[in-house]
Amino acid sequence: MATRSWWGWGTVEDAVTGAERAALTKRVAALLPDADLSVHEAPDPRDLAVPEPRVQLPDSLAQLGSHDLVDRLAHGHRQAFRDVVRNLLGRIDHVPDLVVRPHGEQDVIDILDWCARTGVAAVPFGGGTSVVGGVEPRCGTEFAGTIALDLGRMNTVAEIDRVSRAARIQAGILGPALEDSLRPHGLTLRHFPQSFEFSTLGGWLATRAGGHYATVYTHIDDMVESLRVVTPVGVSASRRLPASGAGPSPDRMFLGSEGILGVITEAWMRVQERPRWRAGASVVFDDYGRAVDATRVIAQAGLFPANCRLLDPVEAFLNAGTATQGGVLVLGFESADHPVDESLRRALEICRDHGGTAPDDVRGSEATAERDRSDTAGTWRNSFLRMPYQRDALAAQSMITETFETACTWSDFDALRAAVQAAASAAFQAAGVTGLLTCRFTHVYPDGPAPYFGIYAAGQWGRTVEQWDEIKAAVSEALHTRGGTITHHHAVGRDHRPWYDRQRPEPFAVALRAAKSALDPAGILNPGVLVDPEKR
Amino acid sequence: MATRSWWGWGTVEDAVTGAERAALTKRVAALLPDADLSVHEAPDPRDLAVPEPRVQLPDSLAQLGSHDLVDRLAHGHRQAFRDVVRNLLGRIDHVPDLVVRPHGEQDVIDILDWCARTGVAAVPFGGGTSVVGGVEPRCGTEFAGTIALDLGRMNTVAEIDRVSRAARIQAGILGPALEDSLRPHGLTLRHFPQSFEFSTLGGWLATRAGGHYATVYTHIDDMVESLRVVTPVGVSASRRLPASGAGPSPDRMFLGSEGILGVITEAWMRVQERPRWRAGASVVFDDYGRAVDATRVIAQAGLFPANCRLLDPVEAFLNAGTATQGGVLVLGFESADHPVDESLRRALEICRDHGGTAPDDVRGSEATAERDRSDTAGTWRNSFLRMPYQRDALAAQSMITETFETACTWSDFDALRAAVQAAASAAFQAAGVTGLLTCRFTHVYPDGPAPYFGIYAAGQWGRTVEQWDEIKAAVSEALHTRGGTITHHHAVGRDHRPWYDRQRPEPFAVALRAAKSALDPAGILNPGVLVDPEKR
Repeated sequence: MATRSWWGWGTVEDAVTGAERAALTKRVAALLPDADLSVHEAPDPRDLAVPEPRVQLPDSLAQLGSHDLVDRLAHGHRQAFRDVVRNLLGRIDHVPDLVVRPHGEQDVIDILDWCARTGVAAVPFGGGTSVVGGVEPRCGTEFAGTIALDLGRMNTVAEIDRVSRAARIQAGILGPALEDSLRPHGLTLRHFPQSFEFSTLGGWLATRAGGHYATVYTHIDDMVESLRVVTPVGVSASRRLPASGAGPSPDRMFLGSEGILGVITEAWMRVQERPRWRAGASVVFDDYGRAVDATRVIAQAGLFPANCRLLDPVEAFLNAGTATQGGVLVLGFESADHPVDESLRRALEICRDHGGTAPDDVRGSEATAERDRSDTAGTWRNSFLRMPYQRDALAAQSMITETFETACTWSDFDALRAAVQAAASAAFQAAGVTGLLTCRFTHVYPDGPAPYFGIYAAGQWGRTVEQWDEIKAAVSEALHTRGGTITHHHAVGRDHRPWYDRQRPEPFAVALRAAKSALDPAGILNPGVLVDPEKR
Repeated sequence: MATRSWWGWGTVEDAVTGAERAALTKRVAALLPDADLSVHEAPDPRDLAVPEPRVQLPDSLAQLGSHDLVDRLAHGHRQAFRDVVRNLLGRIDHVPDLVVRPHGEQDVIDILDWCARTGVAAVPFGGGTSVVGGVEPRCGTEFAGTIALDLGRMNTVAEIDRVSRAARIQAGILGPALEDSLRPHGLTLRHFPQSFEFSTLGGWLATRAGGHYATVYTHIDDMVESLRVVTPVGVSASRRLPASGAGPSPDRMFLGSEGILGVITEAWMRVQERPRWRAGASVVFDDYGRAVDATRVIAQAGLFPANCRLLDPVEAFLNAGTATQGGVLVLGFESADHPVDESLRRALEICRDHGGTAPDDVRGSEATAERDRSDTAGTWRNSFLRMPYQRDALAAQSMITETFETACTWSDFDALRAAVQAAASAAFQAAGVTGLLTCRFTHVYPDGPAPYFGIYAAGQWGRTVEQWDEIKAAVSEALHTRGGTITHHHAVGRDHRPWYDRQRPEPFAVALRAAKSALDPAGILNPGVLVDPEKR
C-alpha cells in the first residue's frame, strides 16, 4: 500500500529521486544555468507548530472524526505550487480542526446539521488535488472551527445500467477504483484528468473538471445523468434523464459550485464501451501560427479527435523531447464501434495543407497499449503523468514551476498568448528571476482553444511563493484583459477569486449569493469560495 | 408579405384548405369513421368581447406600445391545441393589455423599470410559438396589468467572427431571417426546431429548444458562447468563451429560465459551415423492439447521425405513408468537411444486425436539395413542416390533435411507452372518444431517447379543450411516474407546472425562487411560469 505524501503530490514512493532527479536537474540547469538547484527537504510534520483543534464532534459523530496531526496537515494546503512550497517551508497557514469522514448520506446530513448549529465551517473534500485553494480552510475568523468533510469512505460503484450505459457512483471514489469497478463490465467513464489517480468523482463534479480528451464528451458536466446533493435545507435528487428542457438545469447549478451549495454524494454517470479502435500521429510544424490554424480547422471539421494537443516549441522540447520551429500537434482518434483511420487521414490532410509534416504511415487501427509507445505521443503521455511529481521536485529546488490555464476564442488567441508572454516576462524581470513560458492546448472547441501554460523560473528559496504570487497576478490580469476565462478546468477556489469576481456577470453573482443564502442559511459551506455571503 | 394568423399556426396563406383539407379529412375519416369532421371557422376578432387595456404606457415609452385588438389577441393564447381551440371558440381567457416592442436594450431596461414601478407584469415574447402556455398572460390578479414584451424589432445579426465561427445575434430574430443573414458567409446556426419559421433566437434560448438534428450539437444550449440579459437589477453579460470552469455556468442559469429572471436581448452563438456532404437512408423493421435496439446501438456508437428518427408503425403510416410492422428509422449524416458514407454504412450494418431492411444502394454523398426528395425521408420532412397547419385544420373539425414529449433512459423506455399507451387509452375511454397514439424519437442520446408522442382522437365540438386537458393530465402522470421528464424541449410554461413542480428537486426550487427574488424583486417577470414568488 502506497503512502500519500502529506506535503506534495501523490505517493511518497513515486516521488522524484535518484537518477530521475539528477536528469531533471541537469535539464533545468542547461536551460537556466544560474539557478540554485540545491534540494530542500520537507520538514518532519511532528516538528511543526500547529494549533490544537478548537472543536470536538458530539458523541454521536465522534467515530467519524480524526484529529491526527498529519491527517489534518494533509487536508490543509493542497496541490498548488504555493501549497507545496509552504509545506516544504513548514509555513502552515491553515489546517482544519478535524477531518470528518462520513460513511453515507445520513452522516453527511448529520455533520452539516452539527456544523450549522455550532457555527463550524465545513469544507467538502474529495481527493484533495485542488490547485486553487479550493479546500484550504481559509474561512475567515467568524467560525468556531473548520472541518474537512472527506468523502473518501463513500467510494463505490453502487449500480450499473448496462442498457442505458450509466452507473450510479458515490462521490468519494478515486479515478482508478472507479475504472476498476467498470472494467469487468467492458465499460469506462473515460474521464482522465491529470489528477486522475488522486482525485474523486465528487471533486470532478464540484469543479467542472476537464478530462484528458480534446473534444466533444470530455467535460464531466456532459457525462452527468443525475446528481444527489446534500444541502443544509434538504437532499436534492435530480431525475436520471438523457436530456431535459424543464426549466434551467438543476444539475448545472451544482456542477462547478465548489461545495458552497451542498455536498455531492453520488451521481448517475454516463459511461461508455471501452475503446477498441485507435489511430494517432504526431505532426511537426515549422510555423506556430500555421499549426494553430491547422488545429482550428480540425476542431471545426466535426472529426471529434480524442487527442488534439498542440504543443508550442518550448513545450514540445521540454516535455516531449522534440525540437521544432512551430510545435507538435499530437492527434488521436478512438472508437469502441468502428475503425477511425479515415478520420485521422482527413486530419493529417488538413495538417499538410497548413505545412505540417505528417508521417506517411499511420499507426494501426486496433487498440494498442498506450504505455508501450516510444514515439512523441508516448513520450508526452509518460511525461504528462510525471509532471506533478517533477513540479514538486523542482519546487524543492527553488524553482518556480506552476501551470495556469484558460479558454478563449480563436480570434482572441494570438493576442492573448502575446499578452501572457509579455506579462510573464515583465513579472520575471520584476521578481529578478529568469524564466520560461510554455503553452499547449488541452482541449479544442469549434470556437476556441483551451490554452494551458507552464512557468519554469529559477527563484530564491524562501521567496518563491511570493515570487509566484506576483507572476500569477500578472498573467491572470493578462488573461482577464484579453478575453480569457480565469479557469477552464482548474476551478476558482480561493486563489482565483479576484479575477472571477470581475469575470462573472454581476446579476449572476446576485443570483448565486441568493441561492447560497437560501440553501445554506448558516453560511457554513466552504466559506470564501466563489461568493461572499449576502449582506443582510 | 404573408399575414400571420391571429388564432392558429403560421400564416393565413399557408393554412390547410381545398384539396389538402379534403385529403386530410378523408385520411382521418378512414381511421376514425365515426368522427364528426365538419369544419368550424374562426370568429371575426372584431366581434369578440375583449376587455379594454387597463394600463397606459408613459409618454416616454408610448411609441413602443400597441393596443390594437388583433395585435393583443395574437399575443394572448398561442400555439397549443388548447390555445387554438379556445380562439376558434371565441373563448378569450387572457390577452395582454398592451403589446410593447422595444427597439433596443435601453428600451427593455426602461420598460421593465416602468413595469416594476407600476406593478405591471411583463411577459417576454419572441415568436409566440409556445405550446405550453409560456406567454399566455395568466399572471394572477395582483397586477395592475400585463404587457407582451415583444422582441420582434431586435432582429439583426449584428456581428460575425468568421475565424471563431460565431455570430452576435439579437434575440428577436426569426429563424429564416437569421439563416438568410448567415448564408452569404457560408455559415449556418443549423438549429431547426419545427417552429423554425415563426420562432426566435430569444425564444429558443429561454426555453432550451431542441433542433431538428438527432445527436450531439442540436440543443440550443450547446451553441451559446455568451448571453446578454436585461434583469430588473442590471444587465448580465457573460464573456465569449468556448468553455469555462469558473463556477456554475452563468449562461445555464438563464437558459431555460422562460423569462422569469430577465429578458435575453442578444447572444454570441456558435455557427457552422454549411453542410456539403450528406448521406441518408430509411430502414424498415418488422419488430419495434428490435428497431429500438438498433437505434440505441447507433446512438451509443459515436457515429453522431444528423437524423436518427425512429417512427413507430402508426407514426410511419400516418406521417410518412409507410406501412410496416416495426416502424421506420430515418437516418441521415451530414458534414461540411468530409464524406459521411462510411458512417452511414456502419449505421446500416447495425440496422441489419437488428433485422432492419436497409436499401443496398445508399444516397450519394454530395449535398442534394432536401426538398426534392421523393422517398420516405423526404415525405417525412414535408409532412413535418405541414404538421402544425394540419393540426389546426383538424382542431377546427372537432379533432383532438396534439403532441407531447419527454426523454427517458433506454431502460425505462418500454415501460414508459406502455404506460403512456395505457393512460391514453383509459383517458380516451373516460372522455368517450376514439383515439390513436403515435410515437417517434426526435433525439437520441447514448443513455436514452427523446420520445415524441402524437394524439389523434375524435372529440366533440365545444368540449375538446376539456377532453384534451384530461388526456394530457393522464399521459403527463404516466410520464412522471415512469421516470420521464415532463418536457424535453417544449418547455414548462404554465401548462406543465403541476408535473414540473414534482419533478424538480425541492432544494433547486428553493434556490431558483431565491435567485428570482433577487433579480426581480417586484416579481413582474412572467408570473406563473416555473416558480411562484418566495413567501416573505
